[in-house]
Amino acid sequence: MFRKVLYPTDFSEVATRALEYIKQLKPAGAQEVVILHILDRKELRNLALLGGVTGNYPIDLNTEFKRLENEHLENVRNIVNELKTAGFSAKGIVREGNPLAEILKTAEDEAVSVIVIGSTGKSNLQETILGSVSEGVIKRSCQPVLIIKRDTRQGGHV
Amino acid sequence: MFRKVLYPTDFSEVATRALEYIKQLKPAGAQEVVILHILDRKELRNLALLGGVTGNYPIDLNTEFKRLENEHLENVRNIVNELKTAGFSAKGIVREGNPLAEILKTAEDEAVSVIVIGSTGKSNLQETILGSVSEGVIKRSCQPVLIIKRDTRQGGHV
Repeated sequence: MFRKVLYPTDFSEVATRALEYIKQLKPAGAQEVVILHILDRKELRNLALLGGVTGNYPIDLNTEFKRLENEHLENVRNIVNELKTAGFSAKGIVREGNPLAEILKTAEDEAVSVIVIGSTGKSNLQETILGSVSEGVIKRSCQPVLIIKRDTRQGGHV
Repeated sequence: MFRKVLYPTDFSEVATRALEYIKQLKPAGAQEVVILHILDRKELRNLALLGGVTGNYPIDLNTEFKRLENEHLENVRNIVNELKTAGFSAKGIVREGNPLAEILKTAEDEAVSVIVIGSTGKSNLQETILGSVSEGVIKRSCQPVLIIKRDTRQGGHV
């Protein structure tokens, strides 16, 4: 029931918390983890447009996109290694596209047992731009979804 | 992370599938399960109104409510026993009220670690009347939520 896990991540704090839940699923039968990070060129463009107003973002999109891609590949490699150390079989996928569509497609293609995802990893500003990916995953996936909340108040229930 | 589980159930097929996932969480640390069933008098009244049109439902609401309450208490007792046999500490709660509000309140009061819930246990007709309880739980709970889908297509990933 938990054998093969799809773990979509944007490297946010809540996504990192979701990774801890995946590790805890190992004794419940989790063996394989597919780590998926989506490079969203549209998001980058939106941020750059905002940057045009505030001056916080670079204007050269292609250079910035390449830089981000390398950084994100490195992040995914680190998660793969972390999961391998924890005894999982792990595979990383970094792909450009629409996050929701790519998550749903990967869940099907990889025939995963469960999707483990943070509820709202993005900052509020980005949420407004992107909408909530996790909400779409819950509504449209066929697989069970374990959703980790950002504002959890569980005191010591580990 | 999975120590104390809240299991809201309407005894539907997908709710029963969710119970199987809870059992699989035992080696991952699940020890206690709170089984929660909400008696929704408004729902019963709506069904009775429909019955007034189609003739399928009884008109005496109080008698029917009492009958349902006894039936549902018995269902919950059976689930408590099933979980105890599987080695869990289990407690059943049957309460009248608004399903979403009662689920959120119980999750807080019982300080659960995770909520395990079927996505759409109700028939389509009832869904239209009630809206989706699980959707509200996902949006408003502070705890992680494992949501089991009705139309799952996982082939043999147990």
